[in-house]
Formats: sequence, C-alpha cells, structure tokens
Amino acid sequence: MGTATVRFQARKSVAQVEEGAELAPKFDDRGLITVVTTDADSGEVLMQGYMSAEALQLTISTGEAHYYSRSRQALWHKGATSGLVQTVRELLIDDDQDCIWLRVDVAGGASCHVGYRSCFYRKVPVGDEFAARQTDGHVALEWTETEKVFDPEEVYGDAPNPTIL
Amino acid sequence: MGTATVRFQARKSVAQVEEGAELAPKFDDRGLITVVTTDADSGEVLMQGYMSAEALQLTISTGEAHYYSRSRQALWHKGATSGLVQTVRELLIDDDQDCIWLRVDVAGGASCHVGYRSCFYRKVPVGDEFAARQTDGHVALEWTETEKVFDPEEVYGDAPNPTIL
Repeated sequence: MGTATVRFQARKSVAQVEEGAELAPKFDDRGLITVVTTDADSGEVLMQGYMSAEALQLTISTGEAHYYSRSRQALWHKGATSGLVQTVRELLIDDDQDCIWLRVDVAGGASCHVGYRSCFYRKVPVGDEFAARQTDGHVALEWTETEKVFDPEEVYGDAPNPTIL
Repeated sequence: MGTATVRFQARKSVAQVEEGAELAPKFDDRGLITVVTTDADSGEVLMQGYMSAEALQLTISTGEAHYYSRSRQALWHKGATSGLVQTVRELLIDDDQDCIWLRVDVAGGASCHVGYRSCFYRKVPVGDEFAARQTDGHVALEWTETEKVFDPEEVYGDAPNPTIL
C-alpha cells in the first residue's frame, strides 16, 4: 500500500493532455470524472461510476477501487458494505483525460447492487432484430444474465436503493 | 435497417427500471446518457461518450453507433468523417438505465481521434507500483499502445481538436 498522496498536474495544453506522460485529469463542474470498470479476465463491463479527486487519489494509492456515490453524495470504498471489493489490476486514462478505465478483480464475483455479476444484464435488440421485434416502436429488453450472484436484501438489508427515477 | 422510430417508456418505478423488460432510459439534465464502447472481440474499452435520445434511437434502428458530440454540440454518426464506422453487435443497458454499453466491430480497427486503437492508450501505476515510482506524489503515465493505427492529420485535416482543457 502506498502512503504518498497522489498529486495531479495542471492542464496546460492539448499536446500535454493527449500525448504527454503527465497525469492531468479533468473533473467536471461537479468535481467528478467518469469511470468505466471491467472484469480484468472476461473484459465484461461491470459498472459505470464516478470518482472525485479524492476517490481517484485513493484508488491509485491503495490499488482498490474508490468511487464517489452521487446518490449518497459521499466517498465510496466499493465493497465496504457488501465485501465485493474491486482490486485494480490496471488503471487507464483516455486521450483527453476525462475518463478512467479500471480493469479489476472482483471479490465474490459480483458488482451490481441488484445482485447480478455486471450492472449490464439486459440488452436491446438493434438493427434488423429491432425491426423484426418492435411493436409500435417499442421493444422488450432481453436478459443476458439469468441468475443473481447474491441476494441484495441479505447483503444490503434495508439500505436505500441507489436508483433515482 | 429498421425504419420504425424507436420509442422509450416513461420511468415509473424502481422495479420497472431495474427488473423489468421496458426500455426506459434516463437522460441527464443535458438530455444525454453515458455510453461505454468496447471492441466486441477483444473486450477492450475503445471510448466513452454520450448519446442524446435521437442518437440512441438511431443506434438502435440502424445498428451503427451514433453519439452526441458535446464539443460540436451535434448528433454524431461515428465514422462519417473518418470512415471508422462502429457496427453494433450488442447494446446493453445498466440496472438504473442511465448508461449504455455498446459492443462493436470497428471498421479500420481504430476508434480514437488521436490515432490509437482505443482512447485508453496510457495507464497509471497503482498501489505498490505507484509507491515505487512516484516522486513527490507525481507519477508518469505509461503507454499501452505504441503505434498509431492512422495519422489524424490525414484523416481529419484541420478539423478542430475535440479535447477541451
């Protein structure tokens, strides 16, 4: 575990940000950067979330995924409640440094609060499949995972559901 | 190619959104939904972008990725300029339906305007590696791709760079 505080560089030029070796992340007007988290083995997208500067610093220094929960408005050490900690195998940043890609190993094999392995457990038919299956422009979602890895009620009890309508 | 207009459902309950078969995407206060795009074969994250309702409708009906460009403030048929069209093999939506995952085949093999295969061509050392390599909290990015797939100047000419400092 590293103990040094991670520091970022100021954003000075497109060349620096896109082609340079300086870590100069862009946080949006909420102070957040977008994060995509995939399973390091399967490549499956597990979740999409956000990090504050502090969450990104802690993720880099500890090697465990930290996020910022918009629904709880708080720093979020993933797995602190559920035990489903994400160990970071690789942390990548995109061309304009406003998005993080985490490749992780997940304790317990699940990342979704609904109980599935991935948050992306339903798909939408596209193109010819959409045309064949749509009724008046509406189409039914199809499940790509059929069994939950855990029971959300057992793990989270009566904690408030993070989904906002 | 489908010709029917794709229609979305109103968001009525957490159960409907998380556990139902209705497509009820949540667009943010800018009218956008977050999109993660991966290579359908390698699982590599190619890019992270946004879709407007129109972009999502066109992606579903045509089977080719459409985004909303925040820098150009316009609907963006990916590949219209570069030829690097993304054909959607699978379109998934997450638990609370505020994020789309596209699994695509990319014509030309590149998705990044800088010329790399993926927008995520640099990584940040984490944990023990960060601790070993950092100097005063700063650490150098490391390249995961060393050769560009195309020359951006040849493909985009003098079109404005989308990166915003």
